[in-house]
Amino acid sequence: MAYKENYPSKLLEEAVDAISSLPGVGRRSALRLALHLLKQPQENVHHFTKAIDRLRDDVKYCRHCMMISDDEVCAICSDRSRDHRTICVVESVRDVMSIENTGQYHGVYHVLGGIISPINGIGPSDLTIRELVSRVQDATEVILALSGDVEGETTSFYIYRQISPSGVKVSSLARGLGFGDDLEYADELTLGRSIVNRQIFKP
Amino acid sequence: MAYKENYPSKLLEEAVDAISSLPGVGRRSALRLALHLLKQPQENVHHFTKAIDRLRDDVKYCRHCMMISDDEVCAICSDRSRDHRTICVVESVRDVMSIENTGQYHGVYHVLGGIISPINGIGPSDLTIRELVSRVQDATEVILALSGDVEGETTSFYIYRQISPSGVKVSSLARGLGFGDDLEYADELTLGRSIVNRQIFKP
Repeated sequence: MAYKENYPSKLLEEAVDAISSLPGVGRRSALRLALHLLKQPQENVHHFTKAIDRLRDDVKYCRHCMMISDDEVCAICSDRSRDHRTICVVESVRDVMSIENTGQYHGVYHVLGGIISPINGIGPSDLTIRELVSRVQDATEVILALSGDVEGETTSFYIYRQISPSGVKVSSLARGLGFGDDLEYADELTLGRSIVNRQIFKP
Repeated sequence: MAYKENYPSKLLEEAVDAISSLPGVGRRSALRLALHLLKQPQENVHHFTKAIDRLRDDVKYCRHCMMISDDEVCAICSDRSRDHRTICVVESVRDVMSIENTGQYHGVYHVLGGIISPINGIGPSDLTIRELVSRVQDATEVILALSGDVEGETTSFYIYRQISPSGVKVSSLARGLGFGDDLEYADELTLGRSIVNRQIFKP
């Protein structure tokens, strides 16, 4: 059932318009959130909006890896204990956070800021590929950690062609069954690749 | 699985803190929304936060019915074609919007701003009951349109005792099976009350 919209206040309607512009937030949830904010102490609401404004206005991007950062160089790129000759290429800030959370990676990153997607009008020049190419001169290995869909594969292949002339080793994430996954529920493509790319059993 | 939190930026962490303070928004969704806002043009983000600040700073409450409004008197209370002697008492702004959307009510409202709830520390003095009592002098009917739970019933009963000395007619919403409801799935209490409060069949 469509929710008819007769707002008692223009200000409320404008706030609902703004909040419902967020991804995954419908107008009904936006109304609920707006009325919630209306009930909060004024300083809490200002604290809320200032935190968002400050994020957008003051956040910096690391001049090496393009990761968001509070400084010119991010915490990872300024960490001398990390391997600065291994560069892991990811689509987004969130991917860096996910990989960092595994605790398994000790190299540095390169954030593309998106993925090549003609349908969304995103071409190679919209990404930080040129910056990556210039970093690759000093690297020993570039890990392409992009998603496994067509756009991810296209972007991986494009980057591979750009950086392979430098002779750097290029790798990509292992694909296969997840740990604990049941064969019965695996999709055929994943299962098939898991067999082809089988590994030596290490008990 | 808990989501470990290693934010690459203090500003990002503060924005996630702020966004996840909204009801129903977890830290993971808050991160997604923060990174979405970070990708938007700066003026869009400022438009977003200003709409929220303006709502909180500039919205007014109708001096008759306490509904939110852009003016001192809301659109409903300033509509001379409505029946100003029938007052429908509701908990919240959203309830007014819901009843208005039915198109079935032509009286005015009184927004309590909450419901008596000892467990949440909300007593009668936190609501606009005194303002209601002073309005009742000129009314012919007060409709108690509060929720059917214990808190709603308590609040209805409290208001009834406050306003009944004035001799005004006090009514409450009809309760029964919803239109189109199947008997099989109705709860016993609703079905029982529907039989007790049965109505003359009007074919």
